[in-house]
Amino acid sequence: MARYVVGVDFGTLSGRAVVVDVADGAERGSAVHAYRHGVITERLPSGPALPPDWALQDPADHREVLRVAVPAAVRAAGIDPADVIAIGLDATSCTVLPTRADGTPLAELPEFRDRPHAWPKLWKHHAAQRQAERINALAGERGEPWLARYGGRVSAEWQLAKALEVLEADPEVFRRAERWIETADWLVWQLCGRETRNVSAAGFKGLRQDGRYPSVEFLGALHPDLPELLPKVDGPLLSPGARAGGLSAEAARWTGLPAGIAVAAGAIDAHVTAAGARAVEPGRMLAVLGTSTCLIMNSDTCHEVPGVCGVVERGVTAGAWGYEAGQSGVGDIFAWYVERAVPASYAEEARRRGISPYELLDSLAAAQPVGGHGLLALDWHSGNRSVLMDHELSGVLIGLTLATRPEEIWRALPEATAFGARTVVEAFEAAGVPVAELTAAGGLTANRLLLRIYADVLRRPLHVVDSDHPAALGAAIHAAVAAGAYPDVESASAAMGAAHRETWHPDPARAAGYDELYAEYRALHDHFGRGGTDVLHRLRALRNRARPTP
Amino acid sequence: MARYVVGVDFGTLSGRAVVVDVADGAERGSAVHAYRHGVITERLPSGPALPPDWALQDPADHREVLRVAVPAAVRAAGIDPADVIAIGLDATSCTVLPTRADGTPLAELPEFRDRPHAWPKLWKHHAAQRQAERINALAGERGEPWLARYGGRVSAEWQLAKALEVLEADPEVFRRAERWIETADWLVWQLCGRETRNVSAAGFKGLRQDGRYPSVEFLGALHPDLPELLPKVDGPLLSPGARAGGLSAEAARWTGLPAGIAVAAGAIDAHVTAAGARAVEPGRMLAVLGTSTCLIMNSDTCHEVPGVCGVVERGVTAGAWGYEAGQSGVGDIFAWYVERAVPASYAEEARRRGISPYELLDSLAAAQPVGGHGLLALDWHSGNRSVLMDHELSGVLIGLTLATRPEEIWRALPEATAFGARTVVEAFEAAGVPVAELTAAGGLTANRLLLRIYADVLRRPLHVVDSDHPAALGAAIHAAVAAGAYPDVESASAAMGAAHRETWHPDPARAAGYDELYAEYRALHDHFGRGGTDVLHRLRALRNRARPTP
Repeated sequence: MARYVVGVDFGTLSGRAVVVDVADGAERGSAVHAYRHGVITERLPSGPALPPDWALQDPADHREVLRVAVPAAVRAAGIDPADVIAIGLDATSCTVLPTRADGTPLAELPEFRDRPHAWPKLWKHHAAQRQAERINALAGERGEPWLARYGGRVSAEWQLAKALEVLEADPEVFRRAERWIETADWLVWQLCGRETRNVSAAGFKGLRQDGRYPSVEFLGALHPDLPELLPKVDGPLLSPGARAGGLSAEAARWTGLPAGIAVAAGAIDAHVTAAGARAVEPGRMLAVLGTSTCLIMNSDTCHEVPGVCGVVERGVTAGAWGYEAGQSGVGDIFAWYVERAVPASYAEEARRRGISPYELLDSLAAAQPVGGHGLLALDWHSGNRSVLMDHELSGVLIGLTLATRPEEIWRALPEATAFGARTVVEAFEAAGVPVAELTAAGGLTANRLLLRIYADVLRRPLHVVDSDHPAALGAAIHAAVAAGAYPDVESASAAMGAAHRETWHPDPARAAGYDELYAEYRALHDHFGRGGTDVLHRLRALRNRARPTP
Repeated sequence: MARYVVGVDFGTLSGRAVVVDVADGAERGSAVHAYRHGVITERLPSGPALPPDWALQDPADHREVLRVAVPAAVRAAGIDPADVIAIGLDATSCTVLPTRADGTPLAELPEFRDRPHAWPKLWKHHAAQRQAERINALAGERGEPWLARYGGRVSAEWQLAKALEVLEADPEVFRRAERWIETADWLVWQLCGRETRNVSAAGFKGLRQDGRYPSVEFLGALHPDLPELLPKVDGPLLSPGARAGGLSAEAARWTGLPAGIAVAAGAIDAHVTAAGARAVEPGRMLAVLGTSTCLIMNSDTCHEVPGVCGVVERGVTAGAWGYEAGQSGVGDIFAWYVERAVPASYAEEARRRGISPYELLDSLAAAQPVGGHGLLALDWHSGNRSVLMDHELSGVLIGLTLATRPEEIWRALPEATAFGARTVVEAFEAAGVPVAELTAAGGLTANRLLLRIYADVLRRPLHVVDSDHPAALGAAIHAAVAAGAYPDVESASAAMGAAHRETWHPDPARAAGYDELYAEYRALHDHFGRGGTDVLHRLRALRNRARPTP
């Protein structure tokens, strides 16, 4: 008799549920539900304007995915809901919200509805860069032992910078937030009625290392009231694939699943994808190429790699040290270009051919010889979250001429993100963490030109996972472990994870051309990002002064 | 009894004729004729492909303007052609062509029709950069006395680099070219049947100083056959406003004007504009803001200004030292952006509002606070013809974020060209050539946002000339002098030149903001253009290697 698990992946713009067979991971059905408010960047739904660099979400949009996408996926699978034995979920991270003690988001209280700081801050909310800099400076000064685990710099995207931002900008929100919680953990709480914390987010985004968060002394030196954060984030810590509780009666009504089935611990989207992509063995690096890029890898040992986002024990699976590195802007840079810089004549041509502007640009760019456009870009439109870890950096494009065509700029963008990925891979290897194999997942694996560029730039075979939603599959694998169907994520991943759809091999001639361009990229990278000039920061400061925040 | 003169301005894309009253310069009628082949950049009309950086023109297109636009302007004026006493013309420069001894362009001979080097090379043909570099290096080495008159660097756009390019790439064209002549002088030859040379182009573009061209020894050191250029460019030299001859019977048939009327010496477009704009007195700088920018000024004395295009005795008027400086890409950078980077949604919105994309972008950009976009550009999409004099540089754009909007990039472009203009003005003043007054002319003076930005960035009042075609007016003023109606260009300009339409005054707060951005521009300018990094040259070299020239 077949048994099923449900995995739910809460992305940046939508949530996706998938029903898979516990035996082999075969997908039986899936459904997507777009968030009504998407990413809230310009003004709150109730009207108040937001400053630049802000990115919020609406918790109601997340709840709605459980009510809509989960039952829809079960219907699409044509299975009996009674055969579902567990549900697991992952979300973007650090996407974090303040709630009351019972889990009610502050943003849903009438008195906080118009207060931007009361809302869930999406991972790519980048307005806490100043706070991140103070955290980094102080941690460096005090020689905080955890700092090197994060490549020497923590991110403005993470829990502590965001919490300090709220404390300083709207102290009442900070005070009234009885709980300060990752969206994934909050959603697990919504499902099973029990508040838990996943060890992965606590480590990667909450700076928890060797069993403790940063000390009261450290937090107090940043702000006298910041130590109050510690009780707000406290809670039972669960490893990947652990059982958080049983599905509550209320959540059973939302989802149409049997009450009492196992609910897996919350997890970070890119991290569960490693399970979905059978990339949890040490040395197998997973590149999740989407809006942003996450590079995930397990290792038997803990090394301090400059520029990784973090290394966390039990961070990816319970049996290893998990590494995460990343690039804060990838697919969203391409989307920005298509939305804001593709000329009308190209849009018209795409329409005429019945293809998307993306496909048109790819088809025009595919034949270009390496370096033929004369362009070079820095992929920092959304800041830098890899070796520089600085969200006040910005994008650069050089080599423009009057002959430069849109498809040439278009090609320079994935090249830049590939150079950014190579920068990270080289940092791993230089630190003694070899990368034996590289597997790509994520929405951008639909793009053949991009995959070819990555294989050429990275100079290694690039496997592509054969699943349209490996994150949701990974969440389902975690659910299978939580239900006891497998002893651990490793074995569940081996049985249920997706195979490789294809493998891209580097072309030696193109790779040689890219070596030259990569050397230029690194030089430009260091000039603009490592103190050759501070002009990007000054331009950002001038911009912020010219457009004061509300 | 009224008397009239006709001025014809041969621009980059079209020719324009204007009929004006000799007494007061009042315009009676005008007509424009677009060149059938425009700028030839991708392939010859007969098919052969052109390498990057090429820009040619068709001499038949120029002749056609005399046949079409001149009679049309006379008809539009509603005057009796018999009352026209002279014709003058100007053209872009250095736009130069090889001809036979009788003036027949080599490009019009069947055996040379498919040979790119036989065609007239437009001013912005930029494929002779390597030759220009060798000229500069050798001139510096040998201490050639004329070099400092050109700010220490000669341009790839000019006569010698272009001639050397032809000699090296297609020696037969060079050998068979009995004459090597500026388009303006060639057109005067077509009108009056007498070959002459204008002292302005000979000086500014031909490196003629103190009565001589570069020496046989110098030319011979560049290439053993290059001294053969000297007899090809020899000919009677005429000052601005001199009479080259009388209108031939054939040209009278083309134009419908009386045979025998005075034909003025050829002239460079920006230079005659100084006469049209009443900006020929010492210290009055004229900025011709169009496809590219020319800055023209007379002075009583000869100073060596680093970064000027040149200083030439009798270069603008017969009584002074004429200075020219310039920026090789201005309006064409804006046009490039509108053609290749304005998204469909903006094109649609412009259509909906019944305005052009330019107007839409201006309206959206106008309200931005200085620095509010966080962007900075280097205006080198067409190379640099001012203080760096390097056509293998390319454009740079920094500060891009996912929030960057098209109207923000749009605004950063005229800001960059204004910073480029300020760089030149500061070079003049630093060399002891004070700029007392600044007058703008050219197509871009229709753009109010641009004028405001220029006044703010340059921190001085900006007068705008009250004429839609001050170059053609200037050519007509030269014609009036050639006919003897005025003793010199100065007095003709005072009587016939156009008044100021308006004056833009800098706003102190915006100007202060721009001071900050200008400091960043200069730093970026020196980094990319003065050896901080040579990456732009390396990208160009890689591009040229990847896309070999035919």
